[in-house]
Amino acid sequence: MSAFTLENEAFSGLVFYGGLCLAKTAAMSVVTAYHRITKGAMPTEEDSRMLTKDPEKRKKMLVPNDDVERSRKAHLNDLENVVPFVLLGLLYVSTNPPAGSAILHFKIFFWARVLHSVAYICKLRSPSRGVGFFLGFAATISMLYRTISAVY
Amino acid sequence: MSAFTLENEAFSGLVFYGGLCLAKTAAMSVVTAYHRITKGAMPTEEDSRMLTKDPEKRKKMLVPNDDVERSRKAHLNDLENVVPFVLLGLLYVSTNPPAGSAILHFKIFFWARVLHSVAYICKLRSPSRGVGFFLGFAATISMLYRTISAVY
Amino acid sequence: MSAFTLENEAFSGLVFYGGLCLAKTAAMSVVTAYHRITKGAMPTEEDSRMLTKDPEKRKKMLVPNDDVERSRKAHLNDLENVVPFVLLGLLYVSTNPPAGSAILHFKIFFWARVLHSVAYICKLRSPSRGVGFFLGFAATISMLYRTISAVY
Repeated sequence: MSAFTLENEAFSGLVFYGGLCLAKTAAMSVVTAYHRITKGAMPTEEDSRMLTKDPEKRKKMLVPNDDVERSRKAHLNDLENVVPFVLLGLLYVSTNPPAGSAILHFKIFFWARVLHSVAYICKLRSPSRGVGFFLGFAATISMLYRTISAVY
Repeated sequence: MSAFTLENEAFSGLVFYGGLCLAKTAAMSVVTAYHRITKGAMPTEEDSRMLTKDPEKRKKMLVPNDDVERSRKAHLNDLENVVPFVLLGLLYVSTNPPAGSAILHFKIFFWARVLHSVAYICKLRSPSRGVGFFLGFAATISMLYRTISAVY
Repeated sequence: MSAFTLENEAFSGLVFYGGLCLAKTAAMSVVTAYHRITKGAMPTEEDSRMLTKDPEKRKKMLVPNDDVERSRKAHLNDLENVVPFVLLGLLYVSTNPPAGSAILHFKIFFWARVLHSVAYICKLRSPSRGVGFFLGFAATISMLYRTISAVY
């Protein structure tokens, strides 16, 4: 029988927390767009051209803004961690892990990544961001171990 | 019964459009490679070393080229949007959405991303790229909503 | 019947090699962290603040380090190639490819990416890195072709 049905609690947990994780990642685009607009920092020449005709102002718009770069880096860190995690989640669920253990992994990962993003964007004191990263990474390693050893 | 069989129209739609989306993303590597070769802009010192022995020419090869950076940024934007979308598509299909609605989401997303990439690489006038981004993002949000609320 | 069960050899091959590929990608975070710590190169101001009170030393910590940038670029290249590959693997397996052919694709891809990362991080002579990239890319294209044409 396939593990990929909503009757399987581990899988429906993945759909829920994986969905939340991807929503959190998508939200980074909104944060970046917000900073781009409020700080007038555009990524391309044609964007600045739409907003003003003054060549001096255009040049200023193309200078990287600190807040924009910060939310971009947080977004990139999500691509390095969240996207592989949800993908791994699918492989992991196919090995029929106990539902309670699976959901615990997903829950820890999700909240760890929320902490990571908030710490990055709001410049929380170090090592807040590192703690978020590490907890999420540990959940990933634990799932990798279970997945690979199950089919070895 | 599993939703992940080709008899399920929503799933086979995802396999088709998801496959096209990933092919489009892979094509960005080809565009970048093309610009790297024709403009002689290499990413690492060891690449330039293979191409010429002249240390002056090598240094020039390591200066970032505008066209290369442009296709790299378009590629990165695909990583931020296309890869999470196809992954989300798998979670979404498991909630048994109506096939017509599912395929409409996939179709809109695919063509929106084609517009985004063409606008980025060919420097189409703003807001062409933004429209492509926004349509794709809207399809993603709609699928996120359906997915998370189905298992909540 | 669903293709996504461990009794399906092609799928269990994907779980194994896909898991290894994602583990290799996660390992890039460890390599980056190692270089950040040994070279004292931090990504944010708040990290440097935790490590020293001397404002001069802090500034130096924020200068990008060559080894850190190298492992970051190798990581980014994995995001462009490994993550889409494993995701594509799921779509590909649903088209019921012959198990032997599927596992051959996964195996070639995995070892090609190991070569790519080692070549990048250890600065192996060009075109080692390029060969790793190309073999992995060829496996991806072959799977894309099979997947899209199966549902066209």
